[in-house]
Amino acid sequence: MSSSFGINLKITVFGQSHSQAIGVVLDGLPAGEAVDLEETARFLRRRAPGRNEISTPRREADEVKVLSGLVNGLTCGAPLAAVIENTNVRSGDYAQIKTHPRPSHADYTAEVKYHGFQDVRGGGHFSGRLTAPLCFAGAVCLQILARRGITVGAHIFSIGREKDRPFDPVSADAAALGRIAQKPFPVLDDAAGERMREEILAAKRDLDSVGGVIECCALGVPPGIGDPIFDGLENRIAAAVFGIPAVRGIEFGAGFAAAAMRGSEHNDPFYYDGDRVKTATNHHGGALGGISSGMPVLFRAAFKPTPSIAREQRTVDLAAHADAPLSVRGRHDPCIVPRAVPCVEAAAAVALLDLML
Amino acid sequence: MSSSFGINLKITVFGQSHSQAIGVVLDGLPAGEAVDLEETARFLRRRAPGRNEISTPRREADEVKVLSGLVNGLTCGAPLAAVIENTNVRSGDYAQIKTHPRPSHADYTAEVKYHGFQDVRGGGHFSGRLTAPLCFAGAVCLQILARRGITVGAHIFSIGREKDRPFDPVSADAAALGRIAQKPFPVLDDAAGERMREEILAAKRDLDSVGGVIECCALGVPPGIGDPIFDGLENRIAAAVFGIPAVRGIEFGAGFAAAAMRGSEHNDPFYYDGDRVKTATNHHGGALGGISSGMPVLFRAAFKPTPSIAREQRTVDLAAHADAPLSVRGRHDPCIVPRAVPCVEAAAAVALLDLML
Amino acid sequence: MSSSFGINLKITVFGQSHSQAIGVVLDGLPAGEAVDLEETARFLRRRAPGRNEISTPRREADEVKVLSGLVNGLTCGAPLAAVIENTNVRSGDYAQIKTHPRPSHADYTAEVKYHGFQDVRGGGHFSGRLTAPLCFAGAVCLQILARRGITVGAHIFSIGREKDRPFDPVSADAAALGRIAQKPFPVLDDAAGERMREEILAAKRDLDSVGGVIECCALGVPPGIGDPIFDGLENRIAAAVFGIPAVRGIEFGAGFAAAAMRGSEHNDPFYYDGDRVKTATNHHGGALGGISSGMPVLFRAAFKPTPSIAREQRTVDLAAHADAPLSVRGRHDPCIVPRAVPCVEAAAAVALLDLML
Amino acid sequence: MSSSFGINLKITVFGQSHSQAIGVVLDGLPAGEAVDLEETARFLRRRAPGRNEISTPRREADEVKVLSGLVNGLTCGAPLAAVIENTNVRSGDYAQIKTHPRPSHADYTAEVKYHGFQDVRGGGHFSGRLTAPLCFAGAVCLQILARRGITVGAHIFSIGREKDRPFDPVSADAAALGRIAQKPFPVLDDAAGERMREEILAAKRDLDSVGGVIECCALGVPPGIGDPIFDGLENRIAAAVFGIPAVRGIEFGAGFAAAAMRGSEHNDPFYYDGDRVKTATNHHGGALGGISSGMPVLFRAAFKPTPSIAREQRTVDLAAHADAPLSVRGRHDPCIVPRAVPCVEAAAAVALLDLML
Repeated sequence: MSSSFGINLKITVFGQSHSQAIGVVLDGLPAGEAVDLEETARFLRRRAPGRNEISTPRREADEVKVLSGLVNGLTCGAPLAAVIENTNVRSGDYAQIKTHPRPSHADYTAEVKYHGFQDVRGGGHFSGRLTAPLCFAGAVCLQILARRGITVGAHIFSIGREKDRPFDPVSADAAALGRIAQKPFPVLDDAAGERMREEILAAKRDLDSVGGVIECCALGVPPGIGDPIFDGLENRIAAAVFGIPAVRGIEFGAGFAAAAMRGSEHNDPFYYDGDRVKTATNHHGGALGGISSGMPVLFRAAFKPTPSIAREQRTVDLAAHADAPLSVRGRHDPCIVPRAVPCVEAAAAVALLDLML
Repeated sequence: MSSSFGINLKITVFGQSHSQAIGVVLDGLPAGEAVDLEETARFLRRRAPGRNEISTPRREADEVKVLSGLVNGLTCGAPLAAVIENTNVRSGDYAQIKTHPRPSHADYTAEVKYHGFQDVRGGGHFSGRLTAPLCFAGAVCLQILARRGITVGAHIFSIGREKDRPFDPVSADAAALGRIAQKPFPVLDDAAGERMREEILAAKRDLDSVGGVIECCALGVPPGIGDPIFDGLENRIAAAVFGIPAVRGIEFGAGFAAAAMRGSEHNDPFYYDGDRVKTATNHHGGALGGISSGMPVLFRAAFKPTPSIAREQRTVDLAAHADAPLSVRGRHDPCIVPRAVPCVEAAAAVALLDLML
Repeated sequence: MSSSFGINLKITVFGQSHSQAIGVVLDGLPAGEAVDLEETARFLRRRAPGRNEISTPRREADEVKVLSGLVNGLTCGAPLAAVIENTNVRSGDYAQIKTHPRPSHADYTAEVKYHGFQDVRGGGHFSGRLTAPLCFAGAVCLQILARRGITVGAHIFSIGREKDRPFDPVSADAAALGRIAQKPFPVLDDAAGERMREEILAAKRDLDSVGGVIECCALGVPPGIGDPIFDGLENRIAAAVFGIPAVRGIEFGAGFAAAAMRGSEHNDPFYYDGDRVKTATNHHGGALGGISSGMPVLFRAAFKPTPSIAREQRTVDLAAHADAPLSVRGRHDPCIVPRAVPCVEAAAAVALLDLML
Repeated sequence: MSSSFGINLKITVFGQSHSQAIGVVLDGLPAGEAVDLEETARFLRRRAPGRNEISTPRREADEVKVLSGLVNGLTCGAPLAAVIENTNVRSGDYAQIKTHPRPSHADYTAEVKYHGFQDVRGGGHFSGRLTAPLCFAGAVCLQILARRGITVGAHIFSIGREKDRPFDPVSADAAALGRIAQKPFPVLDDAAGERMREEILAAKRDLDSVGGVIECCALGVPPGIGDPIFDGLENRIAAAVFGIPAVRGIEFGAGFAAAAMRGSEHNDPFYYDGDRVKTATNHHGGALGGISSGMPVLFRAAFKPTPSIAREQRTVDLAAHADAPLSVRGRHDPCIVPRAVPCVEAAAAVALLDLML
């Protein structure tokens, strides 16, 4: 119970920020599926650190080595195991964590849960670094989903108070999702993107950090995917997306805004588009009763500001049993959101493929 | 895969709106736990329909019959099975659903998924009625949690645009939660409650419906509960809460508001309160890295407006393969939120107890 | 964790020997499958007690009431819940069990596990009576399997030292399985059956009991069913079959006899029968690497003698902390094996259908 | 669904005989447990090939590299991932398998299941080589169990028709189990061991192979471990043990012999040994109702003869759609049983620890 997800497609993520390697096992992939490792590498580069002034200078090659499950580039039905070696590790930066838990991090809760035996270096198993194997797993699933006509894409919906325009909930198209995925700063409205980058840089200048929201869309999901009550699309996608550190909320379709609506406004009228049943609007976010309707599956995930900030904070000294100041050293993103975009796509892809197998 | 939840405590919800009975099996309850069936009955009455002008006139006795798992009022280690007979069923009301799927309902998606074999009467397995057995399961778990020092309570946070004041994220106390649970309209601020009721009645007068938000709080959860990555408190509570029909989003602690915050603002400073480590604020909602911190576990769930409205809507006629108007008949709540309050508590209780066993 | 089985088809068995009812929920059945309740009733009658001088005089109507999941005799995609009320209960017979655990029963281990809170009446949740809901679940699965061309049948392979002749491992046919299922004493060789009945009656006359072996065969299982390593046919069938009280062993194909064979003798040569690949012999019991080969799936399960015997035995008095004699009263089968035949078929059917969904 | 086992302790085995590496992830280990990697290496050497004339000459260093989950030799609560690189691979030996499935191997069933995409080299994921990571997982669990007072040991019970003497079912002791584990040919009676070795060598001289039975014993399992019906000790141990290729049967306590017994003979009388309740005999094999009794947990697993034999066999040519002769080349054990002894201990240890967490 913990770092594993899935029913028919089980993924298990392993590793700590400073362990010898991190990785993932995918158990239950259909056989005969091509996995293009250059494509998975491109996907992972979207979350890689060290690419510009808004991300941590820690650079990781993030080179994935596939240990099993692929024969001549095709899945063979056996579990696909992949590892990424941890290089460029500066463990010394984190010596203080053991006694001085960082606010808004898992340092304190892990200390309690694991009775002090947790790996504190770099946040251990709770590090954002663990989203690299998640992204690899997602990249594999995305390739398989693509062959089933499904495209998953996400963009930065907001940073701080700056907002991108939303996906068109009814007529978002796969080509547009593809174009966003290519952008170094994935937004629909590049002017809004500029304001968001400025928001991040302002936080950085203030030795501070800032949060944001990511919107994700899955196109081409056939109607009928998802199971009732506890295994609906929402339950399963939420369970996967909360696997990304820093996620504090998730909403589907109109989401929290639906709570302020009238039924006459929120209900999406059905109509025939040729032979296909569609809805004129998409407040339901592509899921009714937990089951896909054939309309775009749409959700947003809220990310808290990066908890590691250079400003002095207040915490406790667990050794001295006393309150204590804390200045977090080390290399950290002033905003995790840009790098989290492929992570959200990956989590959605894993949850979707699991439900479809 | 579907109507079952849990790892060490498994619950399986069964039944359809108009089947002979609905019910739930709880497999994995510890032995020797007292289950006060008058207390569970009181809990279920909080979600019962037909109590006033803001809920559906459908009246159900909702009398729970325990079939197994209890000996002299104590759990015996064997699965606890409980059923509620469906009485007061007017199936005729729903004849039209088969061909004319109701907007924002699962009628269409169930038709596709189950190839037309789904139980259409009253929404079948997707009916809000299925939250009655969920509430029973939750009521049992709440009694067990209470003996471990944990109190779970919820209130109506908003209806439409009207808002209650929030729980005190730091110093909410169990007695206050208990008082809210006794209120027929569970809010902290009764004046706000009056405005909310008016909002519901206005929607009803307009043959319309309205959504809302429920805030839930678990006090006394010891630090260290929850597992990393995919089985954290948030993943598990979200997976349970999305099991309640009409939920469109969930957020923990500061939630979506966290996305607009700076780290210096969002981070909750640790401090010593005597021997106990606490946080001065509680933007993290009691969970860090998926693991409880000992602070109140706080989350909000957004509910869409009841999809069944008396106003004419547009839908399709699946038999005629044509667009068609629809007037939903039958008895429906203009707002599901007041009755959903115990459902949210129940879902949280089931998820929490499962993680603690 | 306990009374639930299955991955895509989950069954949860509930009830105690003397609880108000016993039952089962099947979650994950495909929609649109006909369930003939007269046929399930016929199936349950094969395990019903009280039919003749070799079974317990306890008579149970074993009338199954389906509470949900069926609409007009067809599965609707929602969980199918079924209950059997416990009638004809004589709880007084079992007062002694609490302090004097019966040898070879779960009385003592349940006392330890559940700290004395277990339901002792009639063996509680550990009673053979719980195989009635298992049989109902199996009967439903068997009907679904039959429509996929799969027939499951079992016979009494041995009672004490008396043996039936084995199924033809290569060319057993569905019609023959059907004929055995109709026999009140299901054996291939009726003369052997007579000797077995005599063995049972001899044990009964001696106030004793006797064990036996059941052989089960699944015909028509297409090649390719079963997953590698931990979810193979053998793992899954074994996990289900050990769910029947009194099972002490299971073997597939040549089973324990394979251990004494040479490879040249045990290996089953492949050959073409028209377009189909078959094996000339079937020592592998229809499963290679956990995956079905298309040959009959064949296994045997060993049952211990009924532990409840009228003869005086030695046990402990847990209240007095002293050794004590015990005379088990109550109504018991001198041999459980004849009534267990449909239980084995049921367990195999549930495991097979789960693997096929 | 497939290569993963466990509920609270999940293990996932990955790799193919000739993939870059094989390995295992253990998710759910308690934190703070010492893992002595020299001890795990010693354990793995017990299954290593190439040690003498009765095992395959394929030599594998079987050096385990731990990638994550350990900090300073102690588990840290995060998944423990371990890999073994595949060296000394001669893929050319196996070119014929793709078209000519080896009798009694998974070649044909994998071909059907994976539509020809399976890894055929060396048996792929179905190779006995995959028991190396299982053994590593088991070795870790054994160390943890030992600190809880539990010793698991196994011996060769029979090879062909030659038999060792059985464990003393009542008073087997941990020291004796330890001594057997040190023997290169683990039997209780060394003279019987000599006859067994001769049996193996005779089979080898005949270009043939031979099967056998392994008996396993877990001492010190406290009473109360195991869950009713589908998660009993027998269900869970069987599900794990059938994960070892070549296992064809499993029996607990008196096992199949129980089927020929009278109840008066099979029932194990309870008695007080000081404060502890014990049984005078142990036909129940330490499990009653699926729950441990405190007596030694005893089971036997039957292994078929190694299917790969040098003698010419009959099979099919899937390319030519015709029957064809087959001579299996490559390096194979004439009897897998001696090397399987630690595998059985490992499977039992994983199942036991999972049930105890």
